[in-house]
Amino acid sequence: METIIPKNVIDDYLEKIEITDLNKASIRQVLACEMNAEQVTGQKFIHFEMGVPGIPPSQIGINAQKEALDRGVASKYPNIEGIPELKEQAARFVKAFINTDIDRNHCHPTCGAMQGTFAAFLACSQAVPGKDTILYIDPGFPVQKMQANVLGLKMASFDVADFRAEKLGPKLESYLSKGNICSMIYSNPNNPSWMCLTDSELQTIGALATKYDTVVIEDLAYLTMDFRREGLGIPFQPPYQVSVSHYTDNYIMMLSGSKIFSYAGERIAVACISDKLYERRFDALQERYAISRFGAVYAYDMLYAMSSGVAHSVQYAMAAMLKAACDGIYDFRKDISEYARRTKLVKQSLLRNGFHISYDTDLGELVSDGFFFTFGYKLPDGTDMEGGQLLHELLYYGISGIVLSSTGSTRQGLRGTSSNITDDQLPVLEERLRLFNQAHSK
Amino acid sequence: METIIPKNVIDDYLEKIEITDLNKASIRQVLACEMNAEQVTGQKFIHFEMGVPGIPPSQIGINAQKEALDRGVASKYPNIEGIPELKEQAARFVKAFINTDIDRNHCHPTCGAMQGTFAAFLACSQAVPGKDTILYIDPGFPVQKMQANVLGLKMASFDVADFRAEKLGPKLESYLSKGNICSMIYSNPNNPSWMCLTDSELQTIGALATKYDTVVIEDLAYLTMDFRREGLGIPFQPPYQVSVSHYTDNYIMMLSGSKIFSYAGERIAVACISDKLYERRFDALQERYAISRFGAVYAYDMLYAMSSGVAHSVQYAMAAMLKAACDGIYDFRKDISEYARRTKLVKQSLLRNGFHISYDTDLGELVSDGFFFTFGYKLPDGTDMEGGQLLHELLYYGISGIVLSSTGSTRQGLRGTSSNITDDQLPVLEERLRLFNQAHSK
Repeated sequence: METIIPKNVIDDYLEKIEITDLNKASIRQVLACEMNAEQVTGQKFIHFEMGVPGIPPSQIGINAQKEALDRGVASKYPNIEGIPELKEQAARFVKAFINTDIDRNHCHPTCGAMQGTFAAFLACSQAVPGKDTILYIDPGFPVQKMQANVLGLKMASFDVADFRAEKLGPKLESYLSKGNICSMIYSNPNNPSWMCLTDSELQTIGALATKYDTVVIEDLAYLTMDFRREGLGIPFQPPYQVSVSHYTDNYIMMLSGSKIFSYAGERIAVACISDKLYERRFDALQERYAISRFGAVYAYDMLYAMSSGVAHSVQYAMAAMLKAACDGIYDFRKDISEYARRTKLVKQSLLRNGFHISYDTDLGELVSDGFFFTFGYKLPDGTDMEGGQLLHELLYYGISGIVLSSTGSTRQGLRGTSSNITDDQLPVLEERLRLFNQAHSK
Repeated sequence: METIIPKNVIDDYLEKIEITDLNKASIRQVLACEMNAEQVTGQKFIHFEMGVPGIPPSQIGINAQKEALDRGVASKYPNIEGIPELKEQAARFVKAFINTDIDRNHCHPTCGAMQGTFAAFLACSQAVPGKDTILYIDPGFPVQKMQANVLGLKMASFDVADFRAEKLGPKLESYLSKGNICSMIYSNPNNPSWMCLTDSELQTIGALATKYDTVVIEDLAYLTMDFRREGLGIPFQPPYQVSVSHYTDNYIMMLSGSKIFSYAGERIAVACISDKLYERRFDALQERYAISRFGAVYAYDMLYAMSSGVAHSVQYAMAAMLKAACDGIYDFRKDISEYARRTKLVKQSLLRNGFHISYDTDLGELVSDGFFFTFGYKLPDGTDMEGGQLLHELLYYGISGIVLSSTGSTRQGLRGTSSNITDDQLPVLEERLRLFNQAHSK
């Protein structure tokens, strides 16, 4: 049977690094296997696994950052609360694109949403004795579970695809009613499935967060990237990004510059903590830190202890990009709509060659084309090829991805991203998928 | 009695923020009090409390960072292990200025030594069941204790000033022999006292770290800043910075760019993990992370979960500064010797006006003038004014500092820094100290 990479090149390497089941391999281990295969065979992989911006960083950000460096900010510790300009523009951005009012003082820069979430897990899990468990509304970003593991926090999770609309409330309540959930986390649009929780579902989540006094961590890494919705991403004009912040005071929104502004390399996000949660006092925090306000502990204890703030020059870049977006000068959504174009073409190629989209619909509507997509393969007997096996077999054909099992998904398939797929790779992809399908369809 | 700031301006503000004892105030609260007083009275404070570089950032770093931004690195996630150029130059720097051999792969950029230490506390405290306590060789940097508090780790500490030379070994052994110390931490030169542990003392620490299998976290934030020693800071030439890395394989050295390169604003350091410790396998890490090597867990679990690495452009700045220092093009020690000049003048002013240096000698020799200094005031009855009270009274005279009690010190006094004191402030300082002394000397 013809493959692109000799099977033994893949198998020998996996054996060498002691991987027998790709469900248990890290993205780094899979990448190492690919790089070895590329080196040995000279064949370049279709890198569906790397969720890295594939368009240039915002020039507005770069210019502002260089100007800040010329002003000498590199020697001065950044204020742990963030530079005033960034805080002001972050609050303005939240109003412009989400239509939520938030005090600028409650918007804190973080070293990426990764740090913002880590700090949020710390603060939420220490605020109320007995509330010690994070509820993951899956599928999700595997590293957010690694964060809880690093901190020794308890975890609960479920695949939301099976509990949409009116099923969501009862499912959530079955967890929240136990009283041990300190926070819930999801991304919307969803990484990896690109499902989008609706306004009505967010209302359910918000109401239950209030009822059971649980903090919602809303990861808006892909803000406005539901490309089915016309008109999103125009400042101060509806429609707005749907958000749980419309329905509860128990929220922290993570606004990352990585994907929306293609600024992933510089590690910056803004954690936007609701005005009420920020000012709320917790006895356990007072006892531990001699500071009782949630937001103050988040900044002065968690963020301070983790890195003493965010690189000074990068804060100026973020402030400039947020401002330009609010001013209507920087149409960031137009730039990132390139991902939807690429994903549409990749999905068509997959569908032409016997693959299907694992999470294909969103309450009956097809999911949007966006940064990530999911795909699986049905065997001749009609069953899904198991996800780890699918990745293993696709590696022989020079195609990668990450197994959905690592995202808390119950479905068999892979997550892919088109972010770095160029148009000239599309015929290569088509041919490899064709060969794979030929080999597996009988 | 004449004061610079009306007493009620200070006292009313402290009452408002519920501070009755300045030993329990944070640096931020004290700063808020000063800023209020400056606003009310128009009098500028002598800001002894702010440990911020007072010289411009390295232009070599700025240029390299701007060039990296122009190359578009802002959109690409930095490799979690660090860019190859930085790793190579960090290992070279360790050889050039400390004369320790280390594999470049074991040098990891972090968002400041703050992140590097936080990650080290995580890794060290999880590696061996039962080893759950950090031993602080005090006096030290208060935030390093806050880090343990955030993580819920146990702490032990002692003031090393009372246990120098041959007393150090038995004192350390009294802690280490209990078997619960996972790591020891100190900075050398010491923040705040500017004492310098000697080569012989580091040999003692290293031998005991090996004997009791404890990791030494050596904070080299002030590398080469023992300005009593001629010839330090010349690449690849003795004398070298003394370091525990010469005496044990159980070390992590933190090399921060904040003070030595005046790059504090950009939050970058390099954690240099000994070759043997990096490769050492721990069962508890294997069980928790499915990775057993200490260094791999440090990078792929701790640093990854905390921020997904360090801002990409900043890594290029650090690499360029390290390289220029190794190449002998950038005489960083000459630049920072400005702190010693300022501190010498400030100390003379203190001594002329009835103050004394709290930690004045270092095994019989006067401590070096450097970034930080310590000072106290003796009452007419010959006793030391209590540290919190000293700060309180100095605030009336427009002078600030941090109370030594917050550093784990057993002495009554304050920590000061001359880093941002300009020559035109010296007569102002002299006059204020004179007034203070006049008011308190009888």
